[in-house]
Formats: sequence, C-alpha cells, structure tokens
Amino acid sequence: MYTLYYAPGSASLAVHWLLIDLGVPFELRSLDLQAGEQKRAEYLALNPNGVVPTLVIEGTPAYECAALLMILADRHPDAHLVPAPGAPARLAYYQWMVHLANTLQPAFRQWFYPQEAAGEASAEAARESARQRIESAWDRVDAELAVRGPWIAGGVFSAADFLATMLMRWSRNMPRPATEWPAIREYVARMKERPSFAELYRREGLTDWT
Amino acid sequence: MYTLYYAPGSASLAVHWLLIDLGVPFELRSLDLQAGEQKRAEYLALNPNGVVPTLVIEGTPAYECAALLMILADRHPDAHLVPAPGAPARLAYYQWMVHLANTLQPAFRQWFYPQEAAGEASAEAARESARQRIESAWDRVDAELAVRGPWIAGGVFSAADFLATMLMRWSRNMPRPATEWPAIREYVARMKERPSFAELYRREGLTDWT
Repeated sequence: MYTLYYAPGSASLAVHWLLIDLGVPFELRSLDLQAGEQKRAEYLALNPNGVVPTLVIEGTPAYECAALLMILADRHPDAHLVPAPGAPARLAYYQWMVHLANTLQPAFRQWFYPQEAAGEASAEAARESARQRIESAWDRVDAELAVRGPWIAGGVFSAADFLATMLMRWSRNMPRPATEWPAIREYVARMKERPSFAELYRREGLTDWT
Repeated sequence: MYTLYYAPGSASLAVHWLLIDLGVPFELRSLDLQAGEQKRAEYLALNPNGVVPTLVIEGTPAYECAALLMILADRHPDAHLVPAPGAPARLAYYQWMVHLANTLQPAFRQWFYPQEAAGEASAEAARESARQRIESAWDRVDAELAVRGPWIAGGVFSAADFLATMLMRWSRNMPRPATEWPAIREYVARMKERPSFAELYRREGLTDWT
C-alpha cells in the first residue's frame, strides 16, 4: 500500500501521475506548502528535507521524485516502465533519471527561489543564470529526442518520461517554455495523450498547460 | 568492455573506484580539465555536458556518476552492490543515489565555482550559501548513518557508498569537513579499509585524505 504526501503541481506531480498511470491503489495526503506544513515535525520525521514528495511504501517512507519513480517502476514490472537489465535503454534510463534530477531540478529551484543561491541582492542575477542553464538543458533534451526518441530513454517508454514531462511543465511561464523546442513539443503532446494525464489534472485541480 | 573518461579526484572518482572494486577489466582515458579537453568536439560527441565522467559500455557512452554506479551494480549482480527488488534497502539505495546527486553534488559545484550561480559580484555570497547547504546535508547524512547505518542504504553495502564517500572527500578542505561529523568519520574509515581505495589512489596519483 502507498501513501503519497503531495502538493498540486509540485515535485510530487510525476509520482502522483505514475501512481494513477499504474492503476495501483494509493492514498493521498495533501500538504499546504504556503502554510509551511512540509516543515512540521510530523512531516520532517518522514522526510527531513521538508519538501514534497514523500511516498510511504508498506510503512517505510522514501523521498526524491526520481528515486520514487524508479522504485515504483521496479515494484510493478508488468507495466514495463523500466528497461530490462542489459538492454541498451537501461543506460539511458538511469542517465536521464539522474541528469534531469541533478541538472534541471536544481536549476528550477534557483529559478523559483533565486534568493537562495546568493542572497536577495543578487536574486535577479541568480534567476538569469538559472534561465540560461534551463534553456541549455532543453537544447540537449531536444537534440536527444530528435535523434534518439520518441522517449527520453530512446525507443522505450519508461518512468523517466514522467519526470521529464513534469519538468517541462514547470517551464510553462518562463520566457521560453520547453514546448518552444520542436522535438519537446511533439513529445509533450504524446505524453498528454495518456488518459492518466487528464485524471491527474482532475485530482490535483490543475487547469493550465492542458 | 568499459572505457572510462576521467580526471583524478573529480566526479569520475566513484566510478573509477567501483570499477577497481568490482575487479572487471576497463580502459582509462585521462582528460586534462585545466586544458579544457572536456569541451572538445570529440568528447562532446560522447557527453554533450562537457564534464567527466563518461563511461563507454560496449560501445555506448553514458554519463552522470550516480547513473553509472547504478548501471555497473546492475551489470555485475554477483558483487551484490544493489539491494534486491522488493528489499527495504532498495528504497534507501535509490533515494540516496538521487539525493546525493541532486543536493550535495550541485552544492559542491556552487562551492567550487561560486561565480556560476549569480555572477562574479556575488561569488562570496554564493559560496557561503553552498557551504550552509553542504553542512546541512552532512547533518542529515550523519543522522542517517547513526540511526540506520552502517552503510548509506542501511544494513546493505551498495554502489551508493562509493558516491557518498567521493562527496565526503570533496569537503576535505572546507571549513568543516564531513569527517568532523562522528558517524561520517567512522563511515569514511570503514570505506578507506577497502583494498580498492588504496589502488584507486595509486592509479589516480592522489596523496591527500588518506
């Protein structure tokens, strides 16, 4: 049994989406990030980082969006969301899970909270640096999809596609959203065709980027 | 067959160490980072990010240190460096692989290259912010090792321990190195006992943090 601690549109989105896509039973616990519920003692006992998501799996809490996607893909092998060990796509699967999580995800953190990088005085410069890193990442992701697509790990649809799409969505109000890159635009359109995407939007109450 | 593109002491260290520890045959290609060899066209064709490591696996290049560790652990199951699917330690293994890669690794990037975050003018503030994030991460890692050790994924030694130790080594010249935290100090001592650690140092020509 799974319990997901989440907030709409946040870093929990990809995990929520994958749970719906897998069709497995789970419970939701909503956290009000504006009210700081993610910093309360009872939540910090589950996730000392004080961020969403946390997924409790048969009583054991785990965190980090990319890690939770890999865990769920492993636990539900019939869904074929992780390339088999030894398959060439397995390399790309791990590579993109880590690369998206440690390049785009921190850059988005700096885009949304630019004062964290070097204080309030340089928030604007930090935001500009984050924008450049995010756009440079889309250049590489777009090239990869164009040459080796149709999915982020190549020919094999995988759990990494939920992470990639969540990050693309985060760019929707940026000067140059990810969907301005042509291969990414087609990719996002393919991902939005999944019935689980509409169901995710319904459950999280999201209306933009449809 | 494996070919590792590396530079001594850099983010390739954990992969080099694991290759030695596994006892598998591999070739080394040294890159002179000061001379900018990682930005040359022939290397960018392997790794468009222009950083080390890149591991070529039977002709296919892959990057990201944490991803390469997971790939190698999967490909050599007899070494038992990845907890079995379904084992509780599997959750911690993925969680720490991703968390170390997307929290400590970017913070170290900002510590070593503080001008990247928000320009030269705020480099000092960026460095201070990175220091705080790194020390806060050691607080959490130390607590985890003290409560759930002896290894980063709990009771099971795994490929994630090579990543954790590499990052701890990076802090050696900081105001407060990771080894000032008591559970981390004991952990590092255990990791250094592996014969592969001395062999790694010999091959990379390293002499500090012994």
